[in-house]
Amino acid sequence: MSEEKENIQFELTDELIEQVEQLIETKNDKELQQLLKGFHYADIAEILDEVNLEEAMYVIKLLDSETTSDVLMELDEDNREKVLKNLSAKEIAEEIEELDTDDAADIIAELPEERQQEVISQILDEEHKAEITELLAYDEDTAGGLMAKELVKVFETWTVAGCLRRIRGQAKDVRRVHSIYVVNKQNKLIGRLSLKDLIVAKSDQKIADIYIKSVDYVKVDEDVEEVARVMQKYDLEAIPVVDEDMVLLGRITIDDIVDVIRDEADKDYQMAAGISRDVEADDSIWKLTIARLPWLLIGMFGGLGAASIIEHFNQSMGSFIVLLSFVPLIQATAGNVGVQSSAIVVQGLANDSVDGNILKRLFKEFILGLVNGFAIALIGLGITHFVFGTPYIVSITIAIALVAVIIMAALIGTFIPIFLDKRGIDPAVATGPFITTSNDVFGILTYFLIAKLILGF
Amino acid sequence: MSEEKENIQFELTDELIEQVEQLIETKNDKELQQLLKGFHYADIAEILDEVNLEEAMYVIKLLDSETTSDVLMELDEDNREKVLKNLSAKEIAEEIEELDTDDAADIIAELPEERQQEVISQILDEEHKAEITELLAYDEDTAGGLMAKELVKVFETWTVAGCLRRIRGQAKDVRRVHSIYVVNKQNKLIGRLSLKDLIVAKSDQKIADIYIKSVDYVKVDEDVEEVARVMQKYDLEAIPVVDEDMVLLGRITIDDIVDVIRDEADKDYQMAAGISRDVEADDSIWKLTIARLPWLLIGMFGGLGAASIIEHFNQSMGSFIVLLSFVPLIQATAGNVGVQSSAIVVQGLANDSVDGNILKRLFKEFILGLVNGFAIALIGLGITHFVFGTPYIVSITIAIALVAVIIMAALIGTFIPIFLDKRGIDPAVATGPFITTSNDVFGILTYFLIAKLILGF
Repeated sequence: MSEEKENIQFELTDELIEQVEQLIETKNDKELQQLLKGFHYADIAEILDEVNLEEAMYVIKLLDSETTSDVLMELDEDNREKVLKNLSAKEIAEEIEELDTDDAADIIAELPEERQQEVISQILDEEHKAEITELLAYDEDTAGGLMAKELVKVFETWTVAGCLRRIRGQAKDVRRVHSIYVVNKQNKLIGRLSLKDLIVAKSDQKIADIYIKSVDYVKVDEDVEEVARVMQKYDLEAIPVVDEDMVLLGRITIDDIVDVIRDEADKDYQMAAGISRDVEADDSIWKLTIARLPWLLIGMFGGLGAASIIEHFNQSMGSFIVLLSFVPLIQATAGNVGVQSSAIVVQGLANDSVDGNILKRLFKEFILGLVNGFAIALIGLGITHFVFGTPYIVSITIAIALVAVIIMAALIGTFIPIFLDKRGIDPAVATGPFITTSNDVFGILTYFLIAKLILGF
Repeated sequence: MSEEKENIQFELTDELIEQVEQLIETKNDKELQQLLKGFHYADIAEILDEVNLEEAMYVIKLLDSETTSDVLMELDEDNREKVLKNLSAKEIAEEIEELDTDDAADIIAELPEERQQEVISQILDEEHKAEITELLAYDEDTAGGLMAKELVKVFETWTVAGCLRRIRGQAKDVRRVHSIYVVNKQNKLIGRLSLKDLIVAKSDQKIADIYIKSVDYVKVDEDVEEVARVMQKYDLEAIPVVDEDMVLLGRITIDDIVDVIRDEADKDYQMAAGISRDVEADDSIWKLTIARLPWLLIGMFGGLGAASIIEHFNQSMGSFIVLLSFVPLIQATAGNVGVQSSAIVVQGLANDSVDGNILKRLFKEFILGLVNGFAIALIGLGITHFVFGTPYIVSITIAIALVAVIIMAALIGTFIPIFLDKRGIDPAVATGPFITTSNDVFGILTYFLIAKLILGF
């Protein structure tokens, strides 16, 4: 490897892709290997995500097995699925042998069920096979589904010198040694050590005398979001996973948690925007439609509900037909306030900065709605009367309706996420179109009811 | 420390807070110290975030300086500001001495400018002082603003044995040893080593013979979001920071990156929800109003724009007044589609999965709008005609308008973020109320124009 190989300088250009495609077409294996050797596997995966399946398969067959397995892990999920379809069970098993147990289990879990057993039976390393089979049994949303079996573990009875000797063996299988976990005879987690501690200690000391008894851990059935919260809060880079009896089962590293955090944030963002499935910009039209249409339908039914409210009041409105012109104003305001309120509550619930006290929270939103409402209403009053020339009484009606609608929207936007959270439903589903739609309908209803009351039609 | 001290089991209960408050009131220092000793500093910070300032100050003065400095770092920003106001420059300097350089610089940067110099001048450790002063000079959104000076560095000329001896000294200042950075005589980064490599090597080997030449790094003026992207892509747990001449300046660890990712996600989510500043659910009414009112005003002007469009068409509409009832339907649909389209593009831009090809992207959204539009229009046609009893020609008008509005909203929602991104503006500002508002206005205008064309009023 040359000194020039600095990953951050990698840039995926059209020229580079063309160059790769050219080398594949002319079957110039030597130069292609030379070129790809200079790239990180994550970069090679980016290139393969851009070329067609046939070309990707060509490159995958060309690369050595260790690189291929890492590249496979980094491929876009859809592309990985296609590539795996084109590999035999034996070929997949060979890739699996090169991977850490957590990645290996993830790949196998993505396969169709009938292929899973076929691939597992082809894994030659019996220990690896047993560990992967164990991991496949855990729910993917739990600590067990995220952990790897690779870790460095020492018994409290060992000496520092013996420990270092044995760690040299264990560490070969572990990409990065974060912590050394100390266990007792029953394999139960009793503490931890860092490599640093071990280096600083005298070689004839017993592990029992130098290990740190305070150790964070998670139970194997803990929810991944909770694991992410704990690792973030305590700035942990790895955490051991234990069963009910404190027996050490595996460890979770922070890079997997980074992915969990990113996925969670993406999901919440998409839900707030009214997209119901995990989709990406380059997914198929069909997949995007399935993800987007449900919310549009909910919005449509809201719009039709609003239409029937307007139809109802329209019959008796008479000369106050001008009220209809300001329906979009009411609707937009109700929608915006609702989304703002719910977003703050949803984030607060996620960060634990909103406690369960609904009444306190609603009161605060009430005051906030009152303040925002008066500001908006005053400006609205001035503009409708002086710019649009609506009669004073109509402008006042609109202003009062704005205050009422803003307060109502703030309360609905706050109440729904807290209510859902208490029921154990992810409050993020409540933001976006769902709250916008209910606020549209209730906002317009409130508007006409207030107008009827003041104007007496 | 007892074996029972497991952080994950910490729970912030009302009883616990009451107990702490009780111990403070009765000045039962011994029991209070005993109680808090069992908690992680991040847990103590959570407790102090819940009690009043006077009580928090009492606890802070009681704890030893090392714990206090860690607790300070974990406090809610507003509370930390209040606590720091109540400490003398000398007291703050004492806390700073206990902190890593990156945290120390962050705390000082939060102080009012006149106090910053005062605190710095009170730091006794001259090296620490110089390093903090250096860090304060970097922009907080760059690698320099995020890095710490603490790292383990070895010269290529050292032997493994000499290296281990010296690392024992350096490692004392470093909480976690991720990588050992190898530099040449000019202090330029030339490679890396892991502790594992060092342990596995023979003690008389030269570093020059065993170090890994391939090393990732970032330039000191690199944007933090780019640093986060690189560390995620390559699964790095620490990355060295260098200047233009490759001189090693510091290192960034993954736990700081986790905070960057979380902050970015929170910011994007809030922007999509129309909240213009970084606020939290427990901020003051005033701060929340300032964050929320601007978007409500933009929404209001959109609503007023829609009102003038309706007023305009209303005059000639005659018997087609029923069209007004379906304005909320048009508006809600345009808003929802716009938010969906922009959210997907914004995320795609953030993940680099949307390349700069605007036309290709717009074409895809056009097709998507056509598919979604026809589905919504067909259902809309049926319901308006058969349920609402609107005349056939009006229902057809609404259906055609729905298709047109959905396509238009999808195109606007896609175009604006890509356009802003090309101009170097964060595309996340485009989602939420901004796009909703422009889609409201253009959607209603499109609706009436199509109606005028078909119905000929």
